[in-house]
Amino acid sequence: MRPLPDIAQLKEGILAGNIALLSRAITLIESTNPAHQVLAGALIDQLLPYTGNSLRIGITGVPGVGKSTFIESFGMHLIGKGKKLAVLAIDPSSNISKGSILGDKTRMEQLSVHPMAYIRPSAASGSLGGVTYKTRETTLLCEAAGFDTIIIETVGVGQSETEVSQISDFFLLLMLAGAGDELQGIKRGIMEMADGLIITKADGDNILKSKSARSEYARALHFLPPNASGWIPEVKICSAYDRTGIIEVDAMIEKFHQHQQANGYFLKKRNEQNLFAFRQLLNEALFRQLLAQQGIKDQVKKMETLVFNNQVSPYSAVRQVLDLLPGFHHS
Amino acid sequence: MRPLPDIAQLKEGILAGNIALLSRAITLIESTNPAHQVLAGALIDQLLPYTGNSLRIGITGVPGVGKSTFIESFGMHLIGKGKKLAVLAIDPSSNISKGSILGDKTRMEQLSVHPMAYIRPSAASGSLGGVTYKTRETTLLCEAAGFDTIIIETVGVGQSETEVSQISDFFLLLMLAGAGDELQGIKRGIMEMADGLIITKADGDNILKSKSARSEYARALHFLPPNASGWIPEVKICSAYDRTGIIEVDAMIEKFHQHQQANGYFLKKRNEQNLFAFRQLLNEALFRQLLAQQGIKDQVKKMETLVFNNQVSPYSAVRQVLDLLPGFHHS
Repeated sequence: MRPLPDIAQLKEGILAGNIALLSRAITLIESTNPAHQVLAGALIDQLLPYTGNSLRIGITGVPGVGKSTFIESFGMHLIGKGKKLAVLAIDPSSNISKGSILGDKTRMEQLSVHPMAYIRPSAASGSLGGVTYKTRETTLLCEAAGFDTIIIETVGVGQSETEVSQISDFFLLLMLAGAGDELQGIKRGIMEMADGLIITKADGDNILKSKSARSEYARALHFLPPNASGWIPEVKICSAYDRTGIIEVDAMIEKFHQHQQANGYFLKKRNEQNLFAFRQLLNEALFRQLLAQQGIKDQVKKMETLVFNNQVSPYSAVRQVLDLLPGFHHS
Repeated sequence: MRPLPDIAQLKEGILAGNIALLSRAITLIESTNPAHQVLAGALIDQLLPYTGNSLRIGITGVPGVGKSTFIESFGMHLIGKGKKLAVLAIDPSSNISKGSILGDKTRMEQLSVHPMAYIRPSAASGSLGGVTYKTRETTLLCEAAGFDTIIIETVGVGQSETEVSQISDFFLLLMLAGAGDELQGIKRGIMEMADGLIITKADGDNILKSKSARSEYARALHFLPPNASGWIPEVKICSAYDRTGIIEVDAMIEKFHQHQQANGYFLKKRNEQNLFAFRQLLNEALFRQLLAQQGIKDQVKKMETLVFNNQVSPYSAVRQVLDLLPGFHHS
């Protein structure tokens, strides 16, 4: 059996920006081995004072919208400005990590070989805390390793969009011009989470259509209720082919960053995200414990079916689960 | 001490449409007395086969938008068509029920005295299941009593909008013309929940502005991702003063009802709402039980502060809570 990693060594290595040790630490975080999880928790806690110094950018959009291409261009632009970039890709449709299925090497040719960039697919297996919990901790490790920009990308389609917005400072939605069919993959509610919208592939015959879509979306966003922070989402157009729009997107995100820091929402949002994650994890741990008890899982499943079909009311169903728990006090 | 109510008698009375007994049953549901809650649960379960035969319309909007006035006109219109209407008003900002503070008698003059209408403020005190759980059960009782239209109205401002959408078939958002300040009270995300929008007070000098707002909102909604059911929310204008728009709103809701029933989403949504309510209640019951244990509540509060301030990671904090629970198996 492989010996447990040395936490002190990992910590030192990460703080020194050692990528090999950062990768080992992320693998530790992603491990489902309980002993590894305790070590990972200790490592994170020790590194916490060195975290937080990055801008976390969540990026989502339907397959085919050009996320990888955008991240490649945008990332190279950031690196050109002296930034150090980590790209974490979440694919909830796959339990296989290690980047093999994602083909990151071909997805982002320049970034994947650049010394100032670190690309890592994020495990999304059924571990404690949902799709993004491991990504949340990976973000912290990357920050401790000196990465000042973290891009968190959703690769698969699913619930992860909402979860990514819960671990990002800025949530960016990529769209194609021509509303309608293209929008089908985007869940209702996603647009109201976006801090910025980008119309991709705005080149050639598509330019006019993209500009028109930009106006329409800007109008639509204007009519949505404002963000709690007072930030009004902006819409930009981009072309990877013509290499246009990247500077404008960067400027928008910079403007957002300054806006949020000036009014205190930047830290406020992060603090609230921390609290939300704690409650979600605690909740999940309690449910796991509950369902691990003899007979409870079957009872919950049975009740779910009855409740779904309106044969038992939710309240009665809960009572019939709690009745199986010795020492449970009804309230 | 008052004797416990007779469930068989309440059931029979409700099925016969007896309003006095319906009111008594709702009071039983709202009671925090555990013995009452067991009886209420039994009553609901016995009445379940007689529930579901109504259209549940959730209505929200900022104070001053004219919700009561709209419900008065719309409700009288429905009654004119032979409908039997129950109006349940949720005020999460108040724990006082019984309608005294809401002044329902003056809010809806005609409805409040009409034999085919039943107006009831809905208790929103800190009972199991959040703001709307009691309202959910009250809806079932009203259905068993023969009400074929249930309006669930949010009176206060708060989280209740989201919860009301979880117990409605059709979620209606009332707005004033002239976006901007008036929108501040509406949380981001509410608009994407709406199945229909109404611009109120579309009369006199306000008519042109309201029509223009209607076009703008319709455009904005068109650019939002479509509802899972394929329903595209519509925007109508109304004036209580000129008595216009009510027929159009009624037609929109009828159209929605037929649309959802034809494609199976009507029942599907209700089934999912049932399941959601069960999980939420079970979750809440587990938390209550957890926090009732010696020392746990303090530990959770302590951890919340540390997590909020980024001094402990969420995962560590959860571990430090679970460590206090004897027999809890880490996973």
